[in-house]
Amino acid sequence: MKILKLGIPKGSLQQSTIELFAKSGWRVSVNSRSYFPDIDDPEITCSLCRAQEMSRYVEQGVLDAGITGKDWILENDSEVVTVTDLIYAKVSKRPTRWVLAVPAGSPIRRLEDLEGKKIATELVNFTRRYFEERNINVQVEFSWGATEAKVVQGLADAIVEVTETGSTIRAHGLEIIHELMQSNPQLIANKDAWEDPWKRQKIENLALLLKGALRAYRMVGLKMNVPKEALEEVVKELPSLNAPTISPLYQQEWYAIETVVAEDEVRELIPRLMAAGAQGIIEYSLNKVI
Amino acid sequence: MKILKLGIPKGSLQQSTIELFAKSGWRVSVNSRSYFPDIDDPEITCSLCRAQEMSRYVEQGVLDAGITGKDWILENDSEVVTVTDLIYAKVSKRPTRWVLAVPAGSPIRRLEDLEGKKIATELVNFTRRYFEERNINVQVEFSWGATEAKVVQGLADAIVEVTETGSTIRAHGLEIIHELMQSNPQLIANKDAWEDPWKRQKIENLALLLKGALRAYRMVGLKMNVPKEALEEVVKELPSLNAPTISPLYQQEWYAIETVVAEDEVRELIPRLMAAGAQGIIEYSLNKVI
Amino acid sequence: MKILKLGIPKGSLQQSTIELFAKSGWRVSVNSRSYFPDIDDPEITCSLCRAQEMSRYVEQGVLDAGITGKDWILENDSEVVTVTDLIYAKVSKRPTRWVLAVPAGSPIRRLEDLEGKKIATELVNFTRRYFEERNINVQVEFSWGATEAKVVQGLADAIVEVTETGSTIRAHGLEIIHELMQSNPQLIANKDAWEDPWKRQKIENLALLLKGALRAYRMVGLKMNVPKEALEEVVKELPSLNAPTISPLYQQEWYAIETVVAEDEVRELIPRLMAAGAQGIIEYSLNKVI
Amino acid sequence: MKILKLGIPKGSLQQSTIELFAKSGWRVSVNSRSYFPDIDDPEITCSLCRAQEMSRYVEQGVLDAGITGKDWILENDSEVVTVTDLIYAKVSKRPTRWVLAVPAGSPIRRLEDLEGKKIATELVNFTRRYFEERNINVQVEFSWGATEAKVVQGLADAIVEVTETGSTIRAHGLEIIHELMQSNPQLIANKDAWEDPWKRQKIENLALLLKGALRAYRMVGLKMNVPKEALEEVVKELPSLNAPTISPLYQQEWYAIETVVAEDEVRELIPRLMAAGAQGIIEYSLNKVI
Amino acid sequence: MKILKLGIPKGSLQQSTIELFAKSGWRVSVNSRSYFPDIDDPEITCSLCRAQEMSRYVEQGVLDAGITGKDWILENDSEVVTVTDLIYAKVSKRPTRWVLAVPAGSPIRRLEDLEGKKIATELVNFTRRYFEERNINVQVEFSWGATEAKVVQGLADAIVEVTETGSTIRAHGLEIIHELMQSNPQLIANKDAWEDPWKRQKIENLALLLKGALRAYRMVGLKMNVPKEALEEVVKELPSLNAPTISPLYQQEWYAIETVVAEDEVRELIPRLMAAGAQGIIEYSLNKVI
Amino acid sequence: MKILKLGIPKGSLQQSTIELFAKSGWRVSVNSRSYFPDIDDPEITCSLCRAQEMSRYVEQGVLDAGITGKDWILENDSEVVTVTDLIYAKVSKRPTRWVLAVPAGSPIRRLEDLEGKKIATELVNFTRRYFEERNINVQVEFSWGATEAKVVQGLADAIVEVTETGSTIRAHGLEIIHELMQSNPQLIANKDAWEDPWKRQKIENLALLLKGALRAYRMVGLKMNVPKEALEEVVKELPSLNAPTISPLYQQEWYAIETVVAEDEVRELIPRLMAAGAQGIIEYSLNKVI
Repeated sequence: MKILKLGIPKGSLQQSTIELFAKSGWRVSVNSRSYFPDIDDPEITCSLCRAQEMSRYVEQGVLDAGITGKDWILENDSEVVTVTDLIYAKVSKRPTRWVLAVPAGSPIRRLEDLEGKKIATELVNFTRRYFEERNINVQVEFSWGATEAKVVQGLADAIVEVTETGSTIRAHGLEIIHELMQSNPQLIANKDAWEDPWKRQKIENLALLLKGALRAYRMVGLKMNVPKEALEEVVKELPSLNAPTISPLYQQEWYAIETVVAEDEVRELIPRLMAAGAQGIIEYSLNKVI
Repeated sequence: MKILKLGIPKGSLQQSTIELFAKSGWRVSVNSRSYFPDIDDPEITCSLCRAQEMSRYVEQGVLDAGITGKDWILENDSEVVTVTDLIYAKVSKRPTRWVLAVPAGSPIRRLEDLEGKKIATELVNFTRRYFEERNINVQVEFSWGATEAKVVQGLADAIVEVTETGSTIRAHGLEIIHELMQSNPQLIANKDAWEDPWKRQKIENLALLLKGALRAYRMVGLKMNVPKEALEEVVKELPSLNAPTISPLYQQEWYAIETVVAEDEVRELIPRLMAAGAQGIIEYSLNKVI
Repeated sequence: MKILKLGIPKGSLQQSTIELFAKSGWRVSVNSRSYFPDIDDPEITCSLCRAQEMSRYVEQGVLDAGITGKDWILENDSEVVTVTDLIYAKVSKRPTRWVLAVPAGSPIRRLEDLEGKKIATELVNFTRRYFEERNINVQVEFSWGATEAKVVQGLADAIVEVTETGSTIRAHGLEIIHELMQSNPQLIANKDAWEDPWKRQKIENLALLLKGALRAYRMVGLKMNVPKEALEEVVKELPSLNAPTISPLYQQEWYAIETVVAEDEVRELIPRLMAAGAQGIIEYSLNKVI
Repeated sequence: MKILKLGIPKGSLQQSTIELFAKSGWRVSVNSRSYFPDIDDPEITCSLCRAQEMSRYVEQGVLDAGITGKDWILENDSEVVTVTDLIYAKVSKRPTRWVLAVPAGSPIRRLEDLEGKKIATELVNFTRRYFEERNINVQVEFSWGATEAKVVQGLADAIVEVTETGSTIRAHGLEIIHELMQSNPQLIANKDAWEDPWKRQKIENLALLLKGALRAYRMVGLKMNVPKEALEEVVKELPSLNAPTISPLYQQEWYAIETVVAEDEVRELIPRLMAAGAQGIIEYSLNKVI
Repeated sequence: MKILKLGIPKGSLQQSTIELFAKSGWRVSVNSRSYFPDIDDPEITCSLCRAQEMSRYVEQGVLDAGITGKDWILENDSEVVTVTDLIYAKVSKRPTRWVLAVPAGSPIRRLEDLEGKKIATELVNFTRRYFEERNINVQVEFSWGATEAKVVQGLADAIVEVTETGSTIRAHGLEIIHELMQSNPQLIANKDAWEDPWKRQKIENLALLLKGALRAYRMVGLKMNVPKEALEEVVKELPSLNAPTISPLYQQEWYAIETVVAEDEVRELIPRLMAAGAQGIIEYSLNKVI
Repeated sequence: MKILKLGIPKGSLQQSTIELFAKSGWRVSVNSRSYFPDIDDPEITCSLCRAQEMSRYVEQGVLDAGITGKDWILENDSEVVTVTDLIYAKVSKRPTRWVLAVPAGSPIRRLEDLEGKKIATELVNFTRRYFEERNINVQVEFSWGATEAKVVQGLADAIVEVTETGSTIRAHGLEIIHELMQSNPQLIANKDAWEDPWKRQKIENLALLLKGALRAYRMVGLKMNVPKEALEEVVKELPSLNAPTISPLYQQEWYAIETVVAEDEVRELIPRLMAAGAQGIIEYSLNKVI
């Protein structure tokens, strides 16, 4: 039997990845004694792997495919196929950003002001390349964590660090002066695996269902009943991206309408649908929207 | 842009309020370093606020609207607009009650028997007014918590305390002899904010969706297929409050029926629907029932 | 009013049983101070009871019905009515097995090799009967837990222990050489209660809804729109066990199809449905499938 | 090299036993992956073993010696050598007691009243023998835990359960009507091991140092300086069990006194010593008092 | 038998108070089901009581004595006897302070600038009196907690809050502009109890031993051997507050010196004692220094 | 005032370092909001710093001195002054070792067998130098953690990993074939700071007291009374490294003996001392042994 070797990211992405797979139709279970999570698909074997190292192992072909952050793919400068972006739902909807931060009120305001200075970061290779490409001479040191503290403690002049809202950086009395990159999870594949038709089909099916599940995170189903005379006006209010399903009711001049809408539009939409004549509106959750 | 200043209750109601907002269509996220939760609606700013203090700040106009308990609105004697009751779903379906409790077997049986006695409570102002209105002279002392223990320890003669089932009170060897008030969460508004058309519309939309989400907590969707000859009998079994949606099936003398029923009636209803001829019954959850 | 006395298993099955009841339509809430969980059905009283002891109390009539494992019913050799098996959904879908294990590489390979040896187990009576029926003379000792360690520590020659995947047994350096029994939760009833028509009806309704909820754990609802010309091909792809609901759409040569399918088939099914011409496929969760 | 096989009790006694060994001079460290704790004495190997099973394995010679409760030795009716009682220090200083409890206010007042009744207990064999010796016919059932609840739930008429203060029993609405046995930890030895001179010497040294460490738990060292004229009166105040060490100070008519006293007498003793003329009193902790 | 009714502070002081009593010679054990901790002295009964309410109950005579903060005694304006200050050892050695804080950079710089403003605090009565005595008209509102946030959220103009290092206040962007009071735990007594000779003696013994234990927290015992010729110089180095105990050694021209010194001086003292000729220096901990 | 900038290791050594400082006479307190722990010595400022990065910052002079592992000093190849080894007390007394491990049963048996293979490790630079010095060509890859799993997962051929007992390595099915280095904590100093007399004196005092506290971890004080005729024999039993303190008792032909012995010899020594005639033996703990 053919087998797809799939890397599951260990650490901060682990739990949300497993939940996403569950919603997509694969039950993955991590056993604390093993680095090979069980998956209920005999055609896939899973391997837990640090997001930082994933692209290296996909590039080497130890894994056929894996999920990791775009940032670490760039840090490792790995030659892999990017199958799809996977924008995991988050409250803030803000992307993960790698930024350059200095003490609030520092005279360093632009990249050029860092000439000859020391920068602490976990993303050493990417940061070195980034400054080399701009012909700015800096000393980049690997930071084993607590990077924000490096500047506070006088151990570095600036940091390159990951953040969503910037609040941890500000809480350390630092100020963001530049954004180097935005990142998000990606499904990547080994180049040879991508050339193998069976593996490619398997990976594409995976991508189709992962994206269907991600889409469902922020969409909901709506149902309502509408009298014939209000039908046109109600339909006009519905977002156009998904055509609604309209079915006539039994022995009545009424219609049932079903549709799928973005969750964050519902709070505006429902009052408008009521005004247009819809009744008995109910909303329900979705697992997948293909 | 117009902004609605909204108070989110901190403490025991906090988590269930945030979940209710999520179901209603607003994602609120509390950051442990901040008292201003993020909300994904640019027209609202949130502020975390103790339920005990909320009505004071809504009355003063520091907040336009807020969610808090009816009990603390009465304790603070605040002049605010009560927009709607919000009966959060609970297992017991019993309301929150403020009761007067004394040692089990105490000769104190009625309010009048407390003349000249000492009462410990967190609800000092309400309790004082309550006894004054009945012309009973008592000494009411503020209790900083563990109020039930006050009587056990001989520090007070009676307590006025909040309870749902009375089990904590009984576990302390006390007995409830009187109920002073029932309480539940309420959405309240500042009087001036309520006069402002934009703010009022915003608050009313909020109330509409919060109530729609609350209603969905204890209702479910049911679907089934029914042959023509059983249609009338099956429909007769369905609760009358929501008219079912009946649609003819393709090239068959069968109909699909969809309806919304109270979750705690389903266990009685399903056997009756089967007996009446329904087939392929499925039940699913709802997010909102408007 | 008639009352059904129902035993809820305490311990490893407790949480999943309560969740199953919630999905089935009964809210059970366990109070840490009480052994009688609340249930929102005035016709039932619940009692928390160890799975190991449940069948004894159902047999004696202290309880009318209860949920416990088949293994402990056999250990206690209780005369009760088995109403239904309840296969709780698990990742592995592997059943609970009681197996005989010896040190890896031990000369003991068959049951007969245990003649005159010492076996540690929690299931003393069942194990004794099992060997007696096969005329093998062994010494069976009750193990208070950590049974796998008994062989490692030289305290026993073999163990009879429960396992799903065998991984804990292998992690102790043991090897499974025989399976004595497979077990799963069962709803059981007292013989007299089963003869009482009211109680039997109540227990059968309970069984119907518990099974409906269990079925829903691994099934999902699918909806899609299909043009007339693709209808036949799409319907052919759908699993035959549940007839799909097909309704014509309003003023279009399109049909809406709804059906219920096993969750672990969906990942294979969706690509095939798309290829057959289905559009706007959405998947949603179910609470009950009757 | 000769080796002593020693059983360390797993569970409620485990942590305090390891601390007692540390104070006695042996560092025992439990590795969560192993049932053989490390000990820094090459002449001893340790084995973790349930207190309930310990005496069985010491009797069989699988272990040379072990620490367990007197209650479980009696339950197992094991023939072993009792080397010494080990009274672990506890706040209450009350012994562990196995008592018979019935519902508060029950007509059952004496052992005889249990004739024909059902008793739930973890100590089945001991309880059976206890009633047989008194010619009282009872049905004793093994309880897998939560024994106090058995009577509350109507599953048994009485329980035999372990307690120190009786507070858990009273909290379940039960009443103690009889004490069957007092228990405490004991160091026990296998009969053959006790006959082996090397093993016996090793076990006796262990007993000497364990007892020395236990004694130190509730004793403290006191030092003070005393002028010649007060010497007699101060010495008179000191408890007579340990002769004080009195040494003359350099070029002064003063003496230094050192002694060991029970910790719970110190609070009465210090004021009296001050009154008698002692100065510069200091108190310090002890590891061992031989 | 005479009984002293003693209040033990519940909450932040509870654990350190119980540890202090243990070191002083009384074992107090708190049972989670009871508000009356056990104590191993038949002449004392303990009652757990909020620090905020303690002085009220001591004043009323419900308790004979208790431990609470000076701040809450002043807040309650209670007439009680202050037996002794109890300075619990803390790392920072900084006292607990109640301070007035405003937003960093606010124009409010002095008490007078608060005329007509709103202050949030838990210490309402004390704060009101403090400003009245200075003829400054302010509105003082009770804060149910998270007081620092009140200013950040615009709910108050200033706060009166407790702090040790000021770091929480600064972390909220506030600035301390005035200190209203320093506080520490105190042992207090009811006036009538203080007049009762037996109770007073009991309370004074308690105070003697609590103070002896507190002193021992930051003192240690030192021992060393010194040749005759170095004796004078070594003794000169020793702090003068406690006369050292000097005893001649057996058949040698050497002396043993023992003394008690402050723990935080030892690190400076030891190098000096070595330089002066002391040898074999050892340091040990103390339980009490009377 | 002169200030010593001291690095405290963050992470696995943090807690034990702070406890060692407490025993040595310095109270260090870490505030979760700050990277500069408080210390009760105005001449020292502390900075929390990863063990991996410490030597880099001491070398650069950002810190004057610090505590870190010898392994990370070698990894960073830092030029610093090694002031003293600090062997923290551990149960096993085994040193920390960096070892080379391969799958159990692998044909790789010697360093040379790794020619052309891939090694995963956190200690990349040290490992590269180690193999280069032996002219063995290997590919060394940085591992972000879970290094043992790398071989299991097929991501590397061998690992260089830290271990004490080897049990985690064996639990992963690996085998140690070579030890590259032993490591322990060290107090290191910056070269310029070491030339500054004030800083050198401060660092040396620190070293003196840290070593005194470490010595005390595994030593205890013993006291006993001995009659004149047994004096010689008892003294002969005492370990010779520390001369005992012998003082004559008052008006008796007895002597008090005090001495300091290794904790793990006490259990052998006490029975011998008793046999030799010693009485009233007590043992107590020590904070420092200089």
